[in-house]
This record gives sequence, C-alpha cells and structure tokens, in this order.
Amino acid sequence: MINLDNASTTKPYAEVVNSIALSLEEDYLNISAKYSQAKQIEKKVELIRAGFLKEINAKDGVIIFCPSATAANNLVLRSLNLKEAGKILIADGEHSSVYETAKELKNNGADIDFVPLDKTGHLDLEKFKRSLTPSVRFVSCMLVSNETGAINNIKEITRLAKQANKNCLVHTDCVQALGKIDLSVSDLGVDYATFSAHKIYGPKGIGALYAKNINTLRPLIFGGGQEYNLISGTENFAYIAGFYTALKLTIHKIKENYNIVSNYRQEFLSALESEKIDFILNSPKENFSPYILNLSFKNVRGEVLLHALSQKGILVANGSACSSKKRGNRVLEAMGKNKNEVDWAVRISFSPYEKYDFKTIAKEFKNVIEEIKY
Amino acid sequence: MINLDNASTTKPYAEVVNSIALSLEEDYLNISAKYSQAKQIEKKVELIRAGFLKEINAKDGVIIFCPSATAANNLVLRSLNLKEAGKILIADGEHSSVYETAKELKNNGADIDFVPLDKTGHLDLEKFKRSLTPSVRFVSCMLVSNETGAINNIKEITRLAKQANKNCLVHTDCVQALGKIDLSVSDLGVDYATFSAHKIYGPKGIGALYAKNINTLRPLIFGGGQEYNLISGTENFAYIAGFYTALKLTIHKIKENYNIVSNYRQEFLSALESEKIDFILNSPKENFSPYILNLSFKNVRGEVLLHALSQKGILVANGSACSSKKRGNRVLEAMGKNKNEVDWAVRISFSPYEKYDFKTIAKEFKNVIEEIKY
Repeated sequence: MINLDNASTTKPYAEVVNSIALSLEEDYLNISAKYSQAKQIEKKVELIRAGFLKEINAKDGVIIFCPSATAANNLVLRSLNLKEAGKILIADGEHSSVYETAKELKNNGADIDFVPLDKTGHLDLEKFKRSLTPSVRFVSCMLVSNETGAINNIKEITRLAKQANKNCLVHTDCVQALGKIDLSVSDLGVDYATFSAHKIYGPKGIGALYAKNINTLRPLIFGGGQEYNLISGTENFAYIAGFYTALKLTIHKIKENYNIVSNYRQEFLSALESEKIDFILNSPKENFSPYILNLSFKNVRGEVLLHALSQKGILVANGSACSSKKRGNRVLEAMGKNKNEVDWAVRISFSPYEKYDFKTIAKEFKNVIEEIKY
Repeated sequence: MINLDNASTTKPYAEVVNSIALSLEEDYLNISAKYSQAKQIEKKVELIRAGFLKEINAKDGVIIFCPSATAANNLVLRSLNLKEAGKILIADGEHSSVYETAKELKNNGADIDFVPLDKTGHLDLEKFKRSLTPSVRFVSCMLVSNETGAINNIKEITRLAKQANKNCLVHTDCVQALGKIDLSVSDLGVDYATFSAHKIYGPKGIGALYAKNINTLRPLIFGGGQEYNLISGTENFAYIAGFYTALKLTIHKIKENYNIVSNYRQEFLSALESEKIDFILNSPKENFSPYILNLSFKNVRGEVLLHALSQKGILVANGSACSSKKRGNRVLEAMGKNKNEVDWAVRISFSPYEKYDFKTIAKEFKNVIEEIKY
C-alpha cells in the first residue's frame, strides 16, 4: 500500500499503541471517583494538560480534551450566545465541523457572514478587512487548509480582528498544523485553537481545545461535569495518554519531518512533470504546508482516479474524508475553481514515515490516467 | 486493592485491550475515506452494529456509536424539538447525563416534569400514572439505578406511556443493566436505549444509543456527517471493536456472573451483620440488581468512610463517580431519605471477576467505622 492520504488520518506510532494498552490495563479507575487511587490518574491528566500547553507555546489558558477535533470546534462555536448582538465571521474554507456548525447557528438566527477565500486558497485578507467593524465579536479561520495546505496568516487576522473590536474572540482550527509547522498559540494571539490526535499518529476519538479564557465557553455535553463541565462523560485516560505520546514524538521531529515532506512534495511534482502528466496545481505557491497537495488532472474525474489508484494500492483523497457524505468540493469552489477543475481534483498528502518511490508512483498515475481520461 | 466500586468503571478484559491494540495497528484508515481499503473497515463496523442489535435483542432500529453513554443520553434528549408542544417526563433518579440535560432543556423553555421515586428507589408508578396525559410526548427512565440497583419496570412504564399517547417516545438508560441482567429492547418496547462500554470491561470513551427510528433524532455534533449525521467526527474503530469484544464476552457470561454477584451481595451483608455493624439498606429488597448495594452506616459520614477505606486499599463510592463534582446525593434525597441517611451513604458495587474475602473486608469496615464514627 502506498499511502498518499495522510491528511485524512495517520497510523498510530507503536509507542502510542503501547501507551494506550498500558493505560487501559493499569490506569483504568474512574478519574471522577473520590479515592486517592483515582486521584493519582487525575494528577497524570493535569501534568499532561500542562505539558500540552507547553508544546503549543501557550503562556496561559487551558486544554480541554474532547471526543474529536470536530467536537472541539462544536464546543467553541456553540458557546456563542445567540441572544447576544454582534457579527460572527467564518472563513469560507473551514472544515465541515466549523462550516456545518456555523450554518446551523445561522439557521437558528445567528448573525454570521462567511468570508471568501482568494484564488490561492487563503482567506481573502482584503475582503476580511472590509467585513471588520466594531460589532464583530467572533472570527474563525483555520491555520492550515485541509484541502490545499494553504497557511493563513492567523497572527495578522487576529490582530486585525482585535483592532476592530478588542473583545472579539478568535478561533483557529490547527488540526493540519500541529506537529507539521511551528505553532505558538500565544504568538498567534488567538483565544481558541483546535487539535486532533489522529492526524499526528495518535488515536481517532480524541481532540483538544485550547482556550485562553475558559469562562467564555458553555457546556457542549451535559452530565457529571467532566472537562471543566464542558464535555461531560467519563474521562478517556488511555487516549489522553496516547494523544500526548503522539504529540511529544511528533513535535520532537517537526523540523526533520518538514524537510523530508518538502522533498517528497518537490520530487512528486517533478516526477509527474517528467511523465508529462497534465495537471493544475490547486495548492498555493506561497505560504503552504508541504504535507498537502491539491491537483486537478486534466480530463480525469477525481473520484474515478481515486478508485482506479486504490486498485493499484495507492491511496489519495478527493474532498476531505471528513466530509465524504457531501458532494462537490466546497473549498475549491470557494477559491473560484471552475466546475472541471473541481471535478478533476484529488488531494495528495504525505507522511514523513513512508518511503515513496515517486518515479514508479508517477508511472502508475500516468498509466491509470491514460485509461480513464475522457 | 479490593475494588468494591465496579459500578463506577471496570478493568478492561485482556481481550479488549488486545482488540484495541490490533485495530489501532491494522485498521487505522479513515472509515470515511472513499477507497475500498477504508470501506473494508466500514463493513466491519456494519457487522458490529448488526451483532450489537442482536445482543440487545432488537428486532429493528439502529446502533449509533457515541463518545460516551453521557453523549448518547444528550443525543436523545436534545433531539426533542423545544418548539413542539407536549409534556416531557423525566424520572427523578436519572443519571446526571439525563438529569442535567433535562434541567438545561427546562431552562430553555421545555415543558418538563420530574417524576418522583418511591421509597424503594423505583419510579413511583402511581405518581407516574397520574402524570400521564395524551400530551405526554417523551418519557425517560433508567432500567437499573446506578445509585441503588433498583430495577424499574420499563416494559410497564412504556406500555402506560404509549397507552396515554401512542406517539409518545420512551427512552431508557441501560448502562447499569447491560451484561448484568437479561435485556431485550424489543420486549421493553422502548424507542431508545443507552449503553456504555466501560461498565462492562470495555474502554472509557465510547457509548452506544439504540434508536428504533433514527428519523426521530437530530445532530448532536455537526460536521462531516458520521454516525448517521448525528455524531460527526472520525470514527473510533478501535473502541468500537473493543466495545463489541467486551459486549460479547460479558453477555456470554451473564447468568454465571449474576449468580456469583448475587452470592457476593449476600455474603457481604451477612459478614457486616456478623460483625454487628449498624447499617441501613438503601437498596430495594425486591426488583434489584445484585451488582449495586447502597448502605448507610449509622453515624459514619460516607465521604469519610470512603477515604478511610481507600487508605486500606478498599474502594467504595459515595454518590456516583459520574457526578463527583456535585454535592449531596440527589437520588437518595428523591427517595425521601433524611439528611443523616444521605450523609452516611456509601455505594458498594461488585465485580464477578474479583475474589473477595468478605469476612476480612467486614472486619476492616468494623475497624474503620469504630475509628471515625461520631
């Protein structure tokens, strides 16, 4: 199997699997129980929260563990009080967990505007500036696009938002940034940041939200009061431990992995060109993460290419796997791509832990494309 | 360690740990991806859903995997359309995940009445009957009380509710029933039933909701549309597999374990009596699960007893661990217990997989109680 779909999910590190298995066996007591035997596990969680904050360079604030990054994004957006006045700005290219939640809030009367992307897949900063008024109370824009790899200038976006209204809260979804590009929530200046374990070789079923001021949040799941009374339900210590194990290992290798993947990206593009395959680069040429590459192969339907490649054992995506139930590609459309470009698009995403023979892979692409192009 | 707090959580089976580790290593692709390699994992999930329905004797309906039983209870209650007229009845003894969610809905204008318990800790059937009118549209009552072990007559409660209004939807929280007493959702006649993995030697961080008609539900977490578009977020296959492994092993041993635990309960009560320890039985004398025993030791504060016993390595609970952040004991108060009885209460809960020397345990209780009683 040649996995070129690592933005969708990743294979857990052996250390993560061991950490989860050990925690399931040894630290299985209910953290919410009152006896000291359980409180010892709670102390481990508190140490992990503190370590997590350090890894994302947060000078203050808290980490809230959530069942997924999707739940973390829901937690932020659904904490917005709909009875309060003020404009909510959501970037057009957000992941479905932000976008669909925002649409639901809008249906319930929230004053939400979606801010367009520019042609490169970044938030259109000029249009963003024009939407900013003192009534803007919340902004959500992702750090790295899961569709194109575009890196948004969140520091500048936050500065502009808080310049327009110093009480404006800013959220950034960092799921495709964590462990891949340098990340400092304090430097970005954001109020909230979302993270996922399974994109960095951790388990599926756990995410985390950084919140600068926890008092701005309201419960997403009601019950016994776990996770600062925001996400009730018995704590999943095994996955908290597994997430943290993955985080430390990934951040430790961030520069090394970045260089490997940057080379992979260049080698892959060169190999496609050597094979004279006709494609359009949908990912930006500046301010991008090398981990994600979005391409449209001329006269080749992305979905057909995906299935044909998968029969050869090559995994790619078209449209994020996180929204497989939706049609089309909202993000590419928001970039102004035409119907064909959208229809032809596939997403390639690399792992630094895979060895790729790009010459052979490009030949496979060539063969498959020759067969299926119209 | 002598674990008498197994209603709070359980130690995962070795088979569960193995199943989770194997799934993390082998079935790590994103189920929502479109290639066949991912669809193979989706097929496994569909087989598990079908197997789960069989284990709970459901003739129809679906299983929705949720991040916790708490989330499953939230999913049911928060699917209620607050703009719709009609009375919602919630039993007074419900777990905090139902109770706190119901309180939140009531604060948002829902027409909710809480139905009292009788002195035995069961739903007061006479009072329930008197609350039933054709306008009752939803009823929630747990099958086995997590505080006392009282088994409610859900079949009769459902019959009465649907007799009052044939469109009334009935929900039962089966977290403390699954794998412990015989359970048939079809026989109970309910529309929804909630289950938890970590109470039956599975992992923490996964629950399941049975729904007879999925169209009665609305999304709890918005995003990519996973779990029938009700709980978005990448599927946690490892825990789905672990939950199902735990379910099969537990249900297979349900009768054998029931007999073991029934004996444990009797032996423990006899040992306490032999030591002439003065206690009040808060659990019912009829229609109870032997797994949970609620006792008030005269002139002994439950919380002090809990901590003193934990120093001797004996784990008990006072108030469910699932709501440790709340004070008092809402359920015992709802049964009409006086302040002292509530203050003195502890919950003992057995595991069939532990060996207990109840004579020695009762002596430890005696010694500790002599020291701390006022």
